[in-house]
Amino acid sequence: MGRLEGRTVDPAALEMLKHAEEQGLETAWDRCRAQEPLCGFGNLGVCCRICLQGPCRIDPFGEGATRGICGAQDYSIVARNLIRSIAGGTAAHSDHGRHVALTLLAHLDGHAPDYRIADPAKAEAVARRIGLDPAGKTPQEITREVTLAALRDFSRLEEEPCTWVTSTVTPGMTEKFEECAIMPSNINGAIAEVMHRSTMGVDADPVNLIFGGLKSALADYAGCHLSTDLTDILFGTPRPVRSYANLGVIDPEKVNITVHGHIPLLSEIVVDVAREMEDEARAAGAAGINVVGICCTANEVLMRKGIPLATNFIAQELAIMTGAVDAIIVDLQCIMPALKTLCECFHTRLITTIPFSKIPGAYHVDFREEKAKESARRIVKLAIEAYRERDPAKVHVPQVKNEVVAGFSLEAMLEIFASVNREKPIRALVDAIEEGEIRGIALFAGCTNTKARHDDGHLTIARELARNDVFIVATGCAAGAMAKAGYMTSGAVKEFAGPGLTRFLERLGKASGFEGGLPLAFHMGSCVDNSRPVDLAVLIAKEMGSDVADIPFVATAPEAMHEKAVSIGAWAVTLGFPTHVGVIPPVYGSSLVTEVVTKIAEDVFGGYFILETDPLKAAQKLIEALNYRNWRRKYSRASLDEAMVAE
Amino acid sequence: MGRLEGRTVDPAALEMLKHAEEQGLETAWDRCRAQEPLCGFGNLGVCCRICLQGPCRIDPFGEGATRGICGAQDYSIVARNLIRSIAGGTAAHSDHGRHVALTLLAHLDGHAPDYRIADPAKAEAVARRIGLDPAGKTPQEITREVTLAALRDFSRLEEEPCTWVTSTVTPGMTEKFEECAIMPSNINGAIAEVMHRSTMGVDADPVNLIFGGLKSALADYAGCHLSTDLTDILFGTPRPVRSYANLGVIDPEKVNITVHGHIPLLSEIVVDVAREMEDEARAAGAAGINVVGICCTANEVLMRKGIPLATNFIAQELAIMTGAVDAIIVDLQCIMPALKTLCECFHTRLITTIPFSKIPGAYHVDFREEKAKESARRIVKLAIEAYRERDPAKVHVPQVKNEVVAGFSLEAMLEIFASVNREKPIRALVDAIEEGEIRGIALFAGCTNTKARHDDGHLTIARELARNDVFIVATGCAAGAMAKAGYMTSGAVKEFAGPGLTRFLERLGKASGFEGGLPLAFHMGSCVDNSRPVDLAVLIAKEMGSDVADIPFVATAPEAMHEKAVSIGAWAVTLGFPTHVGVIPPVYGSSLVTEVVTKIAEDVFGGYFILETDPLKAAQKLIEALNYRNWRRKYSRASLDEAMVAE
Repeated sequence: MGRLEGRTVDPAALEMLKHAEEQGLETAWDRCRAQEPLCGFGNLGVCCRICLQGPCRIDPFGEGATRGICGAQDYSIVARNLIRSIAGGTAAHSDHGRHVALTLLAHLDGHAPDYRIADPAKAEAVARRIGLDPAGKTPQEITREVTLAALRDFSRLEEEPCTWVTSTVTPGMTEKFEECAIMPSNINGAIAEVMHRSTMGVDADPVNLIFGGLKSALADYAGCHLSTDLTDILFGTPRPVRSYANLGVIDPEKVNITVHGHIPLLSEIVVDVAREMEDEARAAGAAGINVVGICCTANEVLMRKGIPLATNFIAQELAIMTGAVDAIIVDLQCIMPALKTLCECFHTRLITTIPFSKIPGAYHVDFREEKAKESARRIVKLAIEAYRERDPAKVHVPQVKNEVVAGFSLEAMLEIFASVNREKPIRALVDAIEEGEIRGIALFAGCTNTKARHDDGHLTIARELARNDVFIVATGCAAGAMAKAGYMTSGAVKEFAGPGLTRFLERLGKASGFEGGLPLAFHMGSCVDNSRPVDLAVLIAKEMGSDVADIPFVATAPEAMHEKAVSIGAWAVTLGFPTHVGVIPPVYGSSLVTEVVTKIAEDVFGGYFILETDPLKAAQKLIEALNYRNWRRKYSRASLDEAMVAE
Repeated sequence: MGRLEGRTVDPAALEMLKHAEEQGLETAWDRCRAQEPLCGFGNLGVCCRICLQGPCRIDPFGEGATRGICGAQDYSIVARNLIRSIAGGTAAHSDHGRHVALTLLAHLDGHAPDYRIADPAKAEAVARRIGLDPAGKTPQEITREVTLAALRDFSRLEEEPCTWVTSTVTPGMTEKFEECAIMPSNINGAIAEVMHRSTMGVDADPVNLIFGGLKSALADYAGCHLSTDLTDILFGTPRPVRSYANLGVIDPEKVNITVHGHIPLLSEIVVDVAREMEDEARAAGAAGINVVGICCTANEVLMRKGIPLATNFIAQELAIMTGAVDAIIVDLQCIMPALKTLCECFHTRLITTIPFSKIPGAYHVDFREEKAKESARRIVKLAIEAYRERDPAKVHVPQVKNEVVAGFSLEAMLEIFASVNREKPIRALVDAIEEGEIRGIALFAGCTNTKARHDDGHLTIARELARNDVFIVATGCAAGAMAKAGYMTSGAVKEFAGPGLTRFLERLGKASGFEGGLPLAFHMGSCVDNSRPVDLAVLIAKEMGSDVADIPFVATAPEAMHEKAVSIGAWAVTLGFPTHVGVIPPVYGSSLVTEVVTKIAEDVFGGYFILETDPLKAAQKLIEALNYRNWRRKYSRASLDEAMVAE
């Protein structure tokens, strides 16, 4: 394998990496090499910079210091660092949700006229789920009540549980979280509690610290879930949609606007406004305006508007290097500050839009919900202006793109399932599991990371699981990887699915009349939308009369990178999912913490971490986890039958 | 200077350090040496462990990597790390305040019968200050309203400013904070915002990041201030009280109970209960029960109950090494986990009391406000039980202690000032400043730290400033240092004060009939009580018709250690104080961030950091800062006079 081939399995990315080398352009992979050797202390999690006495570090070989200056041992240091990561992830996801909530409120108060309540039915469904009575109320009234309830999950002072936890999991899970004292009552409060207990001289007990982290992780889950719910109400619940993915979606004939980041409050409007401004682009000599996406903003506008996905996280620089991106509009999270210097090598305008998310030297168009369209127009204008400066000699767009069918909200999936079981749609899936037609379900989530071969983990594990009849759902940059590789097409079913999964997908596709056939991997949204697969799991668990911890449903983040991935992983385990992570988080510095997260967690929550960097081995471990749960279910069913016979 | 002499200037601590070496007992200083050389990257703030790609580090010599894998430059990395420290500090202080608020509410609801509203007058004063009308209401009703208002500072969803900021600073300062968009509206929200904006790929702009940090710092200030106010209401506003300080307060004849940590909810009750249980101690053969304090719990019970102070932060282990401490009760913050192994070398019971602040292997008595006395009794019983196991051969208590007069709440100080100006007590101080009798005021705050010679910074700078006629107030472990050294006595005035300061203190002492004379340094409380000196500064500023940024009032934390010190320092600068820090925080890795905090901050807020490890040089710089403000005030007064004459 060549050096560059070792960096990515994405042919478009590979072509651009070669181009980058030829042009002398720096990428994240180059900067990664410049950081080597990575600090062993940091990598193991045994570096503590929490007070001004250190930095302290524990010698993993037992030759140097075994305790920090305050006496903190490896397990306290590792646990404190870990839960601060979870708090970072929680803050990111929940703030995303809070911003959507505030935009909804502003709209309802008449201050954000460019928005509308796109999905009143979702508002009503959420209202019912959280125990509000929507009868006789207008969509506006219902939405306001739902939004205020969501904001209460950020501001509650009493020790009552977060609505977006209790209303979305099984009663058994709620009870477990209460029992373990990890039920959050206030999302921001849970973050603050983690920060407090991890300061110098507070909590030194690793298990206690980790439980505090799990409380924050459940707050993250609440933040994710309410974010998805409110975004669906505001912009519509996704329905199946066809588009294209990979760098080939960049059209050299058009003004190319890339939306990048996570929160679709502005990018949704940019898509609309761009359609209105086609003439201006044509006046500048372009064939029109082409909006494409990167990272999770891409997933948001792909899911709801069919906007093509250019690439996922780690390859964001490569999009700019095509020389045909006229503006890259960023909101927040996962935006490489490196984009700035890179854009300076081209005509590309880097435009930041959020007051608390700036990059020195970038254009900043302050996005205000009350003037959303105006902000969007300014941005599109900047892109058209930049297009005039584009240097055709620098344009290099790889001709690689694949068809993708996306838009599989839970609602959309249930509609498909309903084609074989109108009364209980979820039975379509449950029957297939119980009859062994499919082995179980796997959620592919998380990022991409220079520590892993780009997209390889996602795709290798997906192929292995598909071959073993595992039903695949995906979110975030994992979904981006599959979309780019063409795994979100029915062609991939033919290529990779085992006989049971093929039968299942073909039967469902036929019954539902799904145009072009169902895909191998179902795109459920951005990383904040990981609540959708949880809803699926909870529905299955309820139908099977058990908890998520009992059903054959696993999660994998083969190339986790962000603190958000750490918090999602933590709540996935807490909710009961065996959860693979393909990049080792900084826990190996403490055997105790490692044991807790990979083994003891299972005894308490049913879920646990599988830490495995080899994608093939990871796939094997995930299949074993599914097999074990299937075996256990059958075994307990058999015991039950036996017991009943005995009576 | 001998090796051990280089570690501390406290004779009791020095004696114990020698004893520790003889006995082969490990101290924080030993562990500090084991950590050397400290990691240069961490020390400079250029190590980033925020995502799972790194750890990344910037080579300070420009030979290695100049950007992280994502492209983050030194200034983004340093700023992100710095503001996460501020968020940690904010979480600690504000959670302290929130717990006091919840205890008050529980008491008002009848669930915490062991407490009482000790200071209804304070409740009324706070109510008036925050704009509530106390007329015709019972102390309970007023306290409830005040407490709910405090909790609103944690839960507000609207963009209205925190009550405990706007109601405690000048209108000019409020305006400045609004202008700079750093006014917090919700303490927990400000913490979450820092955590979000500092995650991978959000804010990369160092100035923007720092302003986010300052918003959290102001939230910290609000948390501190409401904590002080509510604690005064619950346990009484301190009034002058005499006691003793340093390890000699440990009485080998008695059962010694050490209270350590910060939040006095339990320790106040322990003090009461211990008095009731003297007989049980005597039955066990002891001469009685002796409660002493460490760290800020010590300051709390010294200020309000005259309980002796055993020692400050860095020397906490030395107290256990006396072999005469039967139980050490810890609540939260600044508790060395090292205490556990150390207590195992003695009969000492280490008792943790807060559910989210545990140490593996320690006794844990779950403190519940509804059963405060019951918890306290269990703890005192454990101490008496331990006393029976005490090994007299291991007892080694240094015969070092000094008298201390403490209890100088702002209210107490104003009463003294009123003796020379009944109508406008604060004029006593303002007149002395304006007439040049005193050069200004200095707040000594912050911790102790193995990086500095223990107590030396506090005492050296205090002597220099006193000699230069600076009025000294102190909090936290700085106050502990002065108390132990005898600087909180009138004897110290004779020994160290310059002629102006001597005259001022003697005049005031005489006029107020203060028994034994006023001390050189005024103990204003624990580190969370730093709002008291701010109130003093604001009162002076208002009387002088200006803002804190204009008056000769400086702050110094010669041996800062905790994240709380970072957040206090940040708000001190934001409020307008020239603020010395004697331990270099991890900012030197970015010249830009260093410039911002040490220079540019002054242009915006009037306050700025003075980073100086040499106490004598630091004293000189503080004096210069006072001189400059005095000169500027006179100069502008002169210009004003001139202008008026010209008219």
